[in-house]
Amino acid sequence: MRQRNKKWVDGEMEKNTHLVKTPENNKGTWKEIFSNEEEIHLEIGCGKGDFVIGMAEKNPNVNFVAFEKEEQVVAMAIRKLREREEELGTTFNVLFINDDAKDLEKFFEVGEISRIYLNFSDPWRNRKKWFKRRLTHRNFLEIYSKLLVKDGSLFQKTDNRSLFEFSLNEFSDCDWKLKNISLDLHTSDFQDNVVTEYEKKFSEQGMPIYRLEAYKRS
Amino acid sequence: MRQRNKKWVDGEMEKNTHLVKTPENNKGTWKEIFSNEEEIHLEIGCGKGDFVIGMAEKNPNVNFVAFEKEEQVVAMAIRKLREREEELGTTFNVLFINDDAKDLEKFFEVGEISRIYLNFSDPWRNRKKWFKRRLTHRNFLEIYSKLLVKDGSLFQKTDNRSLFEFSLNEFSDCDWKLKNISLDLHTSDFQDNVVTEYEKKFSEQGMPIYRLEAYKRS
Repeated sequence: MRQRNKKWVDGEMEKNTHLVKTPENNKGTWKEIFSNEEEIHLEIGCGKGDFVIGMAEKNPNVNFVAFEKEEQVVAMAIRKLREREEELGTTFNVLFINDDAKDLEKFFEVGEISRIYLNFSDPWRNRKKWFKRRLTHRNFLEIYSKLLVKDGSLFQKTDNRSLFEFSLNEFSDCDWKLKNISLDLHTSDFQDNVVTEYEKKFSEQGMPIYRLEAYKRS
Repeated sequence: MRQRNKKWVDGEMEKNTHLVKTPENNKGTWKEIFSNEEEIHLEIGCGKGDFVIGMAEKNPNVNFVAFEKEEQVVAMAIRKLREREEELGTTFNVLFINDDAKDLEKFFEVGEISRIYLNFSDPWRNRKKWFKRRLTHRNFLEIYSKLLVKDGSLFQKTDNRSLFEFSLNEFSDCDWKLKNISLDLHTSDFQDNVVTEYEKKFSEQGMPIYRLEAYKRS
């Protein structure tokens, strides 16, 4: 585990109301926590939060839950959100969970989520024995499928060709419906893209960004 | 139309029994023409024939029909096949048609084909108004769907990223089942690849070769 080396992390984590400390207590009651009936969208691996904050700003009628396993990184996302809220004098429907995707079923009820975002997830090594760790491995798709509403969706972006190829095949094999596949997002017609930190870096280096939408069949 | 500038073309086209001069007469009776009950596989745009000849050599229990619209190019394929047959002292189940894919329905009956191969098809310009010409445009998929048997398939290879992205989306939108998608065929685990002329050139230049299998849903 990365060593905690910044004092502000503790401060940010303690005082911030956007951090959910016991997410297992919210299972099945997330809409009550958000105090509305809007859809819940999940980002798994939100990093420093640029994407989820940008999405929340653009989509006030969506509730966002963002996972990040690195404590220091989630603290940076939380701070960024707080600063943006102070700047705009508003509150965003975003909650953070400092945990791993493997615990998803502890935190969410069947059919509680409308969309999942996977942005620049760890591709792990391009070896068969590592594939189970990839967040689009069929074992994960099975969990997502349970937690998603009917016609729920998963939107993925990555710079990693091997991960993207793997994902296309996993979704196809598991009979999800693919849509709006892009092999070079930044030269495509796709509108309304909210750029992540990684994406900015990679696309500035001229690397293609891959993107797909996968829909659970009803 | 490209000018015919080689005398041997006429000779090769006239004498060769692998060239079908009136394919419309074979509609619904291709298996009789081949004198067997094996599957019929179609290559649209066979170029100089390396792929279809290699496939025929590896798969003696499949009948191949190969389309090529350029007369001089199909003559080269026919000559190559003849030479290979003479070399091995055998006969391949390959027939050539010197025509365009737009006439497919004139030449084949509903459910007469088991598999279609599209190798390095013309990507045309990456502009919406040119997309109808792409051989994986949904209008073509509708025709293929009619001519293919239940669970029939289409295997595509290309070096063109834009065409491949377009194809993935057309197949998905039209509800074909995608399988074994490869974004870099020559670094993948895929076995038994028969290399085309273009593929050899492009992969030697270090360009990724894209490949997919699409299955018609029954």
